[in-house]
Amino acid sequence: MSNQNRIPVAILGCTGSVGQKFVELLSKHPWFEIKELCASDKSAGKKYKEAVDWFLPSPLPDIVGEILVQKCEPVLQSKVVFSGLDSDVAGDVETKFAKAGYKVISNSKNHRMDDNVPLLIPEVNPDHLELIKFQNYGQGCIVANPNCSVIGLVLALKPLLDNFGLEAVNVVTMQAVSGAGHPRVINLDLEDNVIPLIKGEESKVEIEPLKILGRLNKDRISFINFKISAQCNRVNVSDGHTECVQVKLKKKTSVEKIIQTWKEFSSLPQELKLPLSPTKPINYSDEDSFPQPKYQRNFDKGMAVSIGRLRTDSIFDYRFVITSHNTVRGAAGGAILCAELMKAKGII
Amino acid sequence: MSNQNRIPVAILGCTGSVGQKFVELLSKHPWFEIKELCASDKSAGKKYKEAVDWFLPSPLPDIVGEILVQKCEPVLQSKVVFSGLDSDVAGDVETKFAKAGYKVISNSKNHRMDDNVPLLIPEVNPDHLELIKFQNYGQGCIVANPNCSVIGLVLALKPLLDNFGLEAVNVVTMQAVSGAGHPRVINLDLEDNVIPLIKGEESKVEIEPLKILGRLNKDRISFINFKISAQCNRVNVSDGHTECVQVKLKKKTSVEKIIQTWKEFSSLPQELKLPLSPTKPINYSDEDSFPQPKYQRNFDKGMAVSIGRLRTDSIFDYRFVITSHNTVRGAAGGAILCAELMKAKGII
Amino acid sequence: MSNQNRIPVAILGCTGSVGQKFVELLSKHPWFEIKELCASDKSAGKKYKEAVDWFLPSPLPDIVGEILVQKCEPVLQSKVVFSGLDSDVAGDVETKFAKAGYKVISNSKNHRMDDNVPLLIPEVNPDHLELIKFQNYGQGCIVANPNCSVIGLVLALKPLLDNFGLEAVNVVTMQAVSGAGHPRVINLDLEDNVIPLIKGEESKVEIEPLKILGRLNKDRISFINFKISAQCNRVNVSDGHTECVQVKLKKKTSVEKIIQTWKEFSSLPQELKLPLSPTKPINYSDEDSFPQPKYQRNFDKGMAVSIGRLRTDSIFDYRFVITSHNTVRGAAGGAILCAELMKAKGII
Amino acid sequence: MSNQNRIPVAILGCTGSVGQKFVELLSKHPWFEIKELCASDKSAGKKYKEAVDWFLPSPLPDIVGEILVQKCEPVLQSKVVFSGLDSDVAGDVETKFAKAGYKVISNSKNHRMDDNVPLLIPEVNPDHLELIKFQNYGQGCIVANPNCSVIGLVLALKPLLDNFGLEAVNVVTMQAVSGAGHPRVINLDLEDNVIPLIKGEESKVEIEPLKILGRLNKDRISFINFKISAQCNRVNVSDGHTECVQVKLKKKTSVEKIIQTWKEFSSLPQELKLPLSPTKPINYSDEDSFPQPKYQRNFDKGMAVSIGRLRTDSIFDYRFVITSHNTVRGAAGGAILCAELMKAKGII
Repeated sequence: MSNQNRIPVAILGCTGSVGQKFVELLSKHPWFEIKELCASDKSAGKKYKEAVDWFLPSPLPDIVGEILVQKCEPVLQSKVVFSGLDSDVAGDVETKFAKAGYKVISNSKNHRMDDNVPLLIPEVNPDHLELIKFQNYGQGCIVANPNCSVIGLVLALKPLLDNFGLEAVNVVTMQAVSGAGHPRVINLDLEDNVIPLIKGEESKVEIEPLKILGRLNKDRISFINFKISAQCNRVNVSDGHTECVQVKLKKKTSVEKIIQTWKEFSSLPQELKLPLSPTKPINYSDEDSFPQPKYQRNFDKGMAVSIGRLRTDSIFDYRFVITSHNTVRGAAGGAILCAELMKAKGII
Repeated sequence: MSNQNRIPVAILGCTGSVGQKFVELLSKHPWFEIKELCASDKSAGKKYKEAVDWFLPSPLPDIVGEILVQKCEPVLQSKVVFSGLDSDVAGDVETKFAKAGYKVISNSKNHRMDDNVPLLIPEVNPDHLELIKFQNYGQGCIVANPNCSVIGLVLALKPLLDNFGLEAVNVVTMQAVSGAGHPRVINLDLEDNVIPLIKGEESKVEIEPLKILGRLNKDRISFINFKISAQCNRVNVSDGHTECVQVKLKKKTSVEKIIQTWKEFSSLPQELKLPLSPTKPINYSDEDSFPQPKYQRNFDKGMAVSIGRLRTDSIFDYRFVITSHNTVRGAAGGAILCAELMKAKGII
Repeated sequence: MSNQNRIPVAILGCTGSVGQKFVELLSKHPWFEIKELCASDKSAGKKYKEAVDWFLPSPLPDIVGEILVQKCEPVLQSKVVFSGLDSDVAGDVETKFAKAGYKVISNSKNHRMDDNVPLLIPEVNPDHLELIKFQNYGQGCIVANPNCSVIGLVLALKPLLDNFGLEAVNVVTMQAVSGAGHPRVINLDLEDNVIPLIKGEESKVEIEPLKILGRLNKDRISFINFKISAQCNRVNVSDGHTECVQVKLKKKTSVEKIIQTWKEFSSLPQELKLPLSPTKPINYSDEDSFPQPKYQRNFDKGMAVSIGRLRTDSIFDYRFVITSHNTVRGAAGGAILCAELMKAKGII
Repeated sequence: MSNQNRIPVAILGCTGSVGQKFVELLSKHPWFEIKELCASDKSAGKKYKEAVDWFLPSPLPDIVGEILVQKCEPVLQSKVVFSGLDSDVAGDVETKFAKAGYKVISNSKNHRMDDNVPLLIPEVNPDHLELIKFQNYGQGCIVANPNCSVIGLVLALKPLLDNFGLEAVNVVTMQAVSGAGHPRVINLDLEDNVIPLIKGEESKVEIEPLKILGRLNKDRISFINFKISAQCNRVNVSDGHTECVQVKLKKKTSVEKIIQTWKEFSSLPQELKLPLSPTKPINYSDEDSFPQPKYQRNFDKGMAVSIGRLRTDSIFDYRFVITSHNTVRGAAGGAILCAELMKAKGII
């Protein structure tokens, strides 16, 4: 696809933390072109470079900086909109856009558990996209990107489920600061500290995987049935969530077989060579002390989950550690990969 | 006890990280007086202030700085020695001192699992001190202080065990840097990072509690029988280990009853009013986001374990978070409390 | 003075960052006893432990936590009040208390440059206390504690001025986070960063020393006359300001003589053995890479300024580095030392 | 230049901190292709991916990882070698390569002050490249990249010198950790700290600019004559040196004129559109609190120097703050830009 034919897209909530990451990743995307930017009334009417308090290390792209920010109203030329809206407004605004015929790919939690909204990880449940046929939004639709801690976890679990079955999953997270919002707005007091609470996070990690790994049953998902327990902590890391995971499997297996299963895992986005697709979804490292967020978060464009330290467990069967980039794979990048899949399937 | 009558003590491994903490805490102790300091041959013969690369925030006490460092040979006037030796030398040196009639309170791992060595937490298993009668060291003995992650954990578990019984304990730690050794020697690369490996730590956390909570059976301990799984991580925190704990109990109970049990927990050191004893061993906080190492590690002289976030768990019965000061309660302070108990019992 | 006879004192702005430090330091003071706590209307009527979001590493003293917070009205029993009020209200409130007969020791900037308000560093200009005779507040008075970066600097400059004369002083600061306010309110985005701006700070550092080092001239101060240039940066350090200082002197001297001059410096608080007085105001270190805030800030109760790296300079005559604890020597501790001097002189 | 015709280059000291940055930047370079990698005897004979302890956030490029590391002997096919060698070996090895006919672009300090070695900043003194004619190395030559703190400083000074003349420059640096070497080898103890000493750094910053800004005088450089005083500190920042600079100028001017001069500054690399050349060498920001290393270090591929806070000074004439990326513009990127200039001039 040449640059002239790129599909125009809009970003809702363009000044926030997720919105800025959407801008960064979409500004150099081969298929999509940022045409319109929407935000709150406070920002509307200003040039993006004046409305935004840009905080990403890579500079704000010049062309995008000149775009006039609009209100979040469904009067856009772009028919594809990425939503990085805060959850206190995302629910209604996204519904309004879908009803008006827009394809909404959302990073907010609001519609994730709606019956006919696919909670999509392109490598894991691409068939769930079928759900949008039942949304009754005409040309429009809503597709939801899961929680940032969930995506890495489910990518690690999917090959285990398919090959060995899952009975129980126990996870303790050590999550990065960037997931909490704009660094000059959110104040976490994390210097020399751990905060053992992320409001609402544990319940998301305990329920979302059951939908994602569920079976498509016409107009809804039959949730899979296994137990998940999640404890979520915030640590002083800029980007990259680390998770200590324990699993109880249905079938006997071995450390070697599990590692092989992970290394061989490949799925539709890899087959379709989607632009943001990681070469391989899982990067298993044999290094003793890996994965570490500082060194693995950017692996394969920040889109692969890194796993290491697989070993047996005295209460569950196995335990291991995963790291994935929470604002790339876990948020904006993951949502863009969803849109790429939709484009490849002719939905966009 | 007036200052003139303080009991002379020596510190083995006085220049290391634990050794310095012993110096800091003992330099103002009401019962003990630092009389002698021992270290490797490299340091022997120098004044302590010249031998040590002091790194604690509180300044090196002047009087202690003038003491001439000796080799680790059992030719000391002090009959009580605190050992902060590295585990590669601690085993033999401590045995040599015990055989020569010294009371050795050790912070090293070497003798912790020896049959007749008490692995002592004064609030938990003071009766285990009886074991030293079977050590055949004459006047001498070895008493071991448990691993820094274990002490906080076992203090939290003890009231649960006594009141509700324990079937399984799952723990994931987020440990502070100070446990790793001297900050200008150890290089952990923890800035903006989590390191999900602490060599040898997980097996200690999985076995030591079973001995500490075991039953004294004449000349040895019958280990208690429940499952422990431990995963250990290093995070960028200066002091204070944080642990996410899940427990399966034998009896049904409630969040309220567990909290009450913790709040009521008090033991022999509290009764004896030992100098370093915390007023209450457990500090339960009702604050949503507590305990945090930055704010709870120094509670009650750094000798109490802080607990919070008790809630039900979908796989185990309950989960909660604990924080305790790893170099005070978890190392030097814990070892000194052991010595205080020995003094109160007439052993010293 | 026995504990029963301690002088009752009040703290204005008791819930803020400086207010909390006043609470910590005064709660164990041998001469003063916290009797009353005042804050904004929002906090008034609550117990202190409920009104305050306590953030200091040492726990909130139990007795103080029970005190009922009052409004900042001059209806107190305590006749001595320490003010840690924000500068947007401090000016009027402090004047009101002084007029009502209270001795106000203020850490705010508002009255620092008032003609008849002593800007007091007890070791440097104790004679300036005479100014309060001209304040026309009857029994009341206002005494101001200088800016946190200024106190360390002027303590280092005073012996140079007295012995060699000063022509110019150039200073670049690297200031700690704790000076910016309550850590859960202020958000500085300092992780992996330096912020080269502290609003209003540079002009304070350029003018306050000229008053402090000035000559008492009946009812006002004749400012001393030399040039100061100050550039102020915020760095990611919890406590302790570090300053790179260059000086042009009037008389020729040598590195050795300057160090000797600093080491010999002692003044009225040392002579009077005031409780918070450092044994020696200046701690010169010969270590190559010292002073470092992490290791020197707590020297001598946090009340001494640490100096190091004195060497010649190609543009000025000499350059050196100083570190001092910004919330102890530079704020609450400094203000309490002022009150101790006032007590020793019979003013309190 | 198509990929097939890229010029083969080698990297000396390929496993070290600068060496890795050379690998990262050259692995995607349009003109140069990494053909050979050299390191110490310990690494020679291994594949690069096995010899190196890769620490950069972006992954080690696969193709480069397969290259067999060689000893640092002048038996290479590549005629262009980039040196990131430690200064304890760089001097002799670089001379040996130059004598054997190799073009050596060095990041080490050893040859920087040699009479006939250009100390090159392509925007500042491209004419100094003439010096290599006098090196008597036949086809070979040595070109030196200046110190990391010097490059940003001199880029800021050059337009001031040309337009207003310089009489004195005072600089205090706050330098990033990455300049100190491999993060898993160097241990700086910078957490919650500032270290006010970087061995040997201050003298480099005081002398190198005088050569770079000097006048080419046949076979050597007539150093420019103005005073520089430099004080160097290490702060806890990953990448990006920040410098507080004061200047005394020869001609009167204004804040506005200086800013305009900086904004208009453009030079030979910009004209030649060299691949790593920044679009504009200087990025002046009007934001109050900029430049900050976290947000400006990556500006324009990490090759521009960011300046802000220009204001008048009471001792000098003006003061301002600069930030530049110390391992890109200040080391590997700067050295590659030198090579690009040499290629454009037909030397390579």
